[in-house]
Amino acid sequence: MSTIKLLEYEESSPKAQKVLDDIKSIRQTDTVNNFWKAMANHPDSMDSLWSNLKTVMAPGALDALTKEMIYIAVSVTNNCDYCIHSHTSNAFAKGMTKAQYGELLAVISMAHQTNALATAMKIEVDDNFKK
Amino acid sequence: MSTIKLLEYEESSPKAQKVLDDIKSIRQTDTVNNFWKAMANHPDSMDSLWSNLKTVMAPGALDALTKEMIYIAVSVTNNCDYCIHSHTSNAFAKGMTKAQYGELLAVISMAHQTNALATAMKIEVDDNFKK
Amino acid sequence: MSTIKLLEYEESSPKAQKVLDDIKSIRQTDTVNNFWKAMANHPDSMDSLWSNLKTVMAPGALDALTKEMIYIAVSVTNNCDYCIHSHTSNAFAKGMTKAQYGELLAVISMAHQTNALATAMKIEVDDNFKK
Amino acid sequence: MSTIKLLEYEESSPKAQKVLDDIKSIRQTDTVNNFWKAMANHPDSMDSLWSNLKTVMAPGALDALTKEMIYIAVSVTNNCDYCIHSHTSNAFAKGMTKAQYGELLAVISMAHQTNALATAMKIEVDDNFKK
Amino acid sequence: MSTIKLLEYEESSPKAQKVLDDIKSIRQTDTVNNFWKAMANHPDSMDSLWSNLKTVMAPGALDALTKEMIYIAVSVTNNCDYCIHSHTSNAFAKGMTKAQYGELLAVISMAHQTNALATAMKIEVDDNFKK
Amino acid sequence: MSTIKLLEYEESSPKAQKVLDDIKSIRQTDTVNNFWKAMANHPDSMDSLWSNLKTVMAPGALDALTKEMIYIAVSVTNNCDYCIHSHTSNAFAKGMTKAQYGELLAVISMAHQTNALATAMKIEVDDNFKK
Repeated sequence: MSTIKLLEYEESSPKAQKVLDDIKSIRQTDTVNNFWKAMANHPDSMDSLWSNLKTVMAPGALDALTKEMIYIAVSVTNNCDYCIHSHTSNAFAKGMTKAQYGELLAVISMAHQTNALATAMKIEVDDNFKK
Repeated sequence: MSTIKLLEYEESSPKAQKVLDDIKSIRQTDTVNNFWKAMANHPDSMDSLWSNLKTVMAPGALDALTKEMIYIAVSVTNNCDYCIHSHTSNAFAKGMTKAQYGELLAVISMAHQTNALATAMKIEVDDNFKK
Repeated sequence: MSTIKLLEYEESSPKAQKVLDDIKSIRQTDTVNNFWKAMANHPDSMDSLWSNLKTVMAPGALDALTKEMIYIAVSVTNNCDYCIHSHTSNAFAKGMTKAQYGELLAVISMAHQTNALATAMKIEVDDNFKK
Repeated sequence: MSTIKLLEYEESSPKAQKVLDDIKSIRQTDTVNNFWKAMANHPDSMDSLWSNLKTVMAPGALDALTKEMIYIAVSVTNNCDYCIHSHTSNAFAKGMTKAQYGELLAVISMAHQTNALATAMKIEVDDNFKK
Repeated sequence: MSTIKLLEYEESSPKAQKVLDDIKSIRQTDTVNNFWKAMANHPDSMDSLWSNLKTVMAPGALDALTKEMIYIAVSVTNNCDYCIHSHTSNAFAKGMTKAQYGELLAVISMAHQTNALATAMKIEVDDNFKK
Repeated sequence: MSTIKLLEYEESSPKAQKVLDDIKSIRQTDTVNNFWKAMANHPDSMDSLWSNLKTVMAPGALDALTKEMIYIAVSVTNNCDYCIHSHTSNAFAKGMTKAQYGELLAVISMAHQTNALATAMKIEVDDNFKK
């Protein structure tokens, strides 16, 4: 159970409704996920966050699927339940194959392993990495 | 200063030297970075780790640069100094552009922001994300 | 389900019961939350922890609500389910307004975002911050 | 050494210079800290981040010092070197007393201790904390 | 609900079945826990991981119970629900007493407390710790 | 550089000096490490922390070296520079062999790897682990 009420469209303020409308339009869907129903309690933060998210996740120098996989990598490392489920679901919807998911998991878990080793042994950064 | 001695090639055991030779051969370089000089203290772990790393980081369903960027995302979230420096350096060596790096940072920092919000409000996972 | 049995008052040792009595008295309540029922398995740690907690959370140079909000900030960042729920509940009980909660979330999520950026780019600390 | 060049004012793009001018004006200072010199490499992200930061950190339902202390709590938990130094420095500049700092540290460290215990024992959240 | 299907033995590939057989044989059990049913989706990673795990967790310079307790310490700090449950269960199965568990929790939570303090105050490492 | 002044014995309050005396006596040494010189700024917290630390780290159901290794495991996962150095140094001083250190690192890094996998795939906890 969330710490604040998830607001349905009718319960949201006009400013929040405008963001909800834009989310539905951009994502071409009739439903909005719980994250935004929670954010609707704070319309100014919601507006600013959605605006940034649209910009950041749009295809650019990196394609949309690569961005979702990077999002998954961070969410797993931060251990965010909601985010792992939503972005893994998004990535599959954007065409991530089972083989790609397998390699994504392999890279994530390998990184955790070597992160721990480098941190435990306090290894000095090589000069050539500092360029 | 690291918690254990960084071993030069001549100081390493034959098993570790074999791994060091393979690293130099695969990476087509004469020098080996400090991480492996530290791992040379534990030749069995070193051998197994290098063998896994070669497999995991080889191009497959995901290309080599995408894998480096995922590695960076995990290393930043785990706050591993050595790994951030080495994998950012690797990614640039593999052709990451400044624009790609900018978008990588934007996705990583956006993910941290929404991870914190979803965690703070303990938002329930939508059923459709659970597929 | 917890890894150890939650002990009810009657099942607790005399030392644990004394702590439970003090918790009820200080908090002016008849019920004790699950955290302390778990800690009752380890009466010495429980006694020491409760004693510290009373001191640390008492109003002093910082007021009680500010302390709860700092506790929430740490608990979110550590992703502790139990602690997020209990301290958010405590903060509302101590008078946190919806507007304050919104700003608390905004600061927490902004901090996560800039933490990730500063860590990713390994920015050197300015000399004037070190004094 | 940072992963990207810290840009001085003269090296920055016009868009970045405009942000740098605003930072100097708002903070009434002639110098800008390294974080923004790094962000100047990515003027769009920089502009959006500074705009959000100004809004989020302005006094509102929470005063400016309380916000800095919450920022410190997150930065310590995320272990962000740069952020710990800069926000601790900011908090002292905004009037944090030594006694307040001592209590801030005490709450942060107490929260870490109980976070670990609640997580380790997987304690179920009490029903009354959920609403 | 997991992000991928948990595969039963009959649904698994021959390579995965071989690993599942080895797990049952080594652990002298007829059932395999969910982690391996998930890993069965990625037989190569599964094979390599199981092979490493067998080596790493076998009694050597450290006994099997000590290794499980170290595993718990990491899993609690990483906040991995599955891992906390499975390794706490394993540790009790390997003979961990209630008193040992209490001391394990006490050390873990004490470490979290002092980690936060040392990080918050950015304390310089003493020279004599560095060699 | 630390965020607060490291206090030498002569600069410390009588209450802090009493703790410093006890540390020197228990550890049979003339010097005190930087952590306690920082804590000397907050004599009440210092007194309480030292008292707990003495109790928690004393040999009991777990021996002193096992406790140091658990402390290292947490400190690596929390990425606490000071704590990794000080407790690794302590563990070697208490007799940790190079082989034990190698196995400790292997367990820590294996745990990070499987923690990430279990978290990424959101694997349901098996009923028999919940006992």
